[in-house]
Amino acid sequence: MPPLLRVQNFTVSSDGYGAGTGQSLEHPFGHADPGELMAWAGATASWSHRTAPGGTRGLDDHLVRDLDHNIGAEIMGRNKFGPQRGPWTDHTWQGWWGDEPPFHTPVFVLTHHLRPSFTLADTTFHFVDDEPAEVLTRARAAADGRDVRLGGGAQSIRAFLAADLVDTLHVAVSPVRLGSGTRLWESPDELDDRFHHEAVPSSSGVVHHLLWRR
Amino acid sequence: MPPLLRVQNFTVSSDGYGAGTGQSLEHPFGHADPGELMAWAGATASWSHRTAPGGTRGLDDHLVRDLDHNIGAEIMGRNKFGPQRGPWTDHTWQGWWGDEPPFHTPVFVLTHHLRPSFTLADTTFHFVDDEPAEVLTRARAAADGRDVRLGGGAQSIRAFLAADLVDTLHVAVSPVRLGSGTRLWESPDELDDRFHHEAVPSSSGVVHHLLWRR
Repeated sequence: MPPLLRVQNFTVSSDGYGAGTGQSLEHPFGHADPGELMAWAGATASWSHRTAPGGTRGLDDHLVRDLDHNIGAEIMGRNKFGPQRGPWTDHTWQGWWGDEPPFHTPVFVLTHHLRPSFTLADTTFHFVDDEPAEVLTRARAAADGRDVRLGGGAQSIRAFLAADLVDTLHVAVSPVRLGSGTRLWESPDELDDRFHHEAVPSSSGVVHHLLWRR
Repeated sequence: MPPLLRVQNFTVSSDGYGAGTGQSLEHPFGHADPGELMAWAGATASWSHRTAPGGTRGLDDHLVRDLDHNIGAEIMGRNKFGPQRGPWTDHTWQGWWGDEPPFHTPVFVLTHHLRPSFTLADTTFHFVDDEPAEVLTRARAAADGRDVRLGGGAQSIRAFLAADLVDTLHVAVSPVRLGSGTRLWESPDELDDRFHHEAVPSSSGVVHHLLWRR
C-alpha cells in the first residue's frame, strides 16, 4: 500500500476553528480551552497524557489509538511548534513538549525563518521553508515507507489541501463554539467534491468526520 | 496500561451467529458465506487479504486496521484452526492459512487433543487443554507486555466471557441472517450488566458494537 499523508485527530469547534485568537505562551490555543475542545480525546483510555487509570474504550478510543499507527514523520505549522512570530530570537525554545516530545519521529516545521535542526529524545525537528509538495517529499523520505501525519494547525492543513496532497482526514467536530480563530473550514461538506466522507457521531458529543480521496 | 484480552473484528449475523452449521474443509464457516458476512471488512483499504488497489478508508477501515495493534498473542478455538474433530489423525494439517499465517505472534489453540507446537514463518501454534484462566496466563507471558487477542469462534469467546476474562470486545453485526450455527449471543445488549457498550452504525450496513469492562 503506498504511504499516505494523513490528518489524524484534528479537532475543530462546531463553527470550524482549530484554535482561537490570541495565541501566546500561556494560551497555546488562544481564547479556546484545549481541555474543552479535546475533552472527547482526554476521556479515552489511550490518551497519551492520561495520568489517572481508567478511561473509555469505545469509538473515541479507537480513533485516539490510531494516531501514531504506521506514522513515520509529521509535518506541522509553526504555530503548532510555538507562539513566536518572525525571526527566531531565542533558540532555547524547543517546542511545548519538554524533553520527551510525543512524536517519536522526524518532525518538519513549516516556517519562513529557518533554524538548525535539533533532537530531543527520539524526535528530531527540522525547519523548512518550501512549498508543500517539497516538504512532503522530504517527510516521505524520512518516514521510510510509513505514512506522514499532517499535524495541523488549520492553516497548514488548508495549504496542503489547496495543493491536493492530503490522502485522508480524520477531523473531530467538538460541540464547542469559538466564534473566531484559525478556521479549517466553513462546513465539513466543503471537501465532498474531492473526498469520500463519512460523518460518525460519538456518544461523547463529537462527530468524527472521516474523509479519503476519491 | 495493563495488557488486555481483546476480541477484535469478530463478525456475527444479525441473529447472533459467528458461523453457520456444517463446517468442513470446503466450507470453513459452514452454510454461512464468509464473503458476505465479512463484506464490510473486505471492502476496506486495510483488509489484509486485499489484492486489488483501492478500498474504503472510513469507520470500517479504522476498525480493520486496529486488528493487530499492540497484539502479542492470539487465543483461538479449535474450529477456527481447522474442521477436524476428535483425535488428530493428520499432523500435516497446519491451519487454513498456508505457509504464512496472518498472525505473526504465538497462537494458542484450545483443544482436548494435544499435539506438538509448530512454527510457520513468524507464527507459532501451541495446542492447549486448560481452563481459560490458565490459557490466558500462558498467552500473556508469550505476549510480552502486549495485549492478547481472543480470535474466536463464538464458543471460545463465550467460554472466556463466562470466566469473566475479557476486557474489550469489538463485534460487528452484519445485516445477514443465518438462522442456525454457532451463536455468540441472543442480543448485543445481554452483556450490558458487565460492560460499557457503544453501538456505532457504519455506512456499510454493519453495526459495530464496542464493549469494555465496567
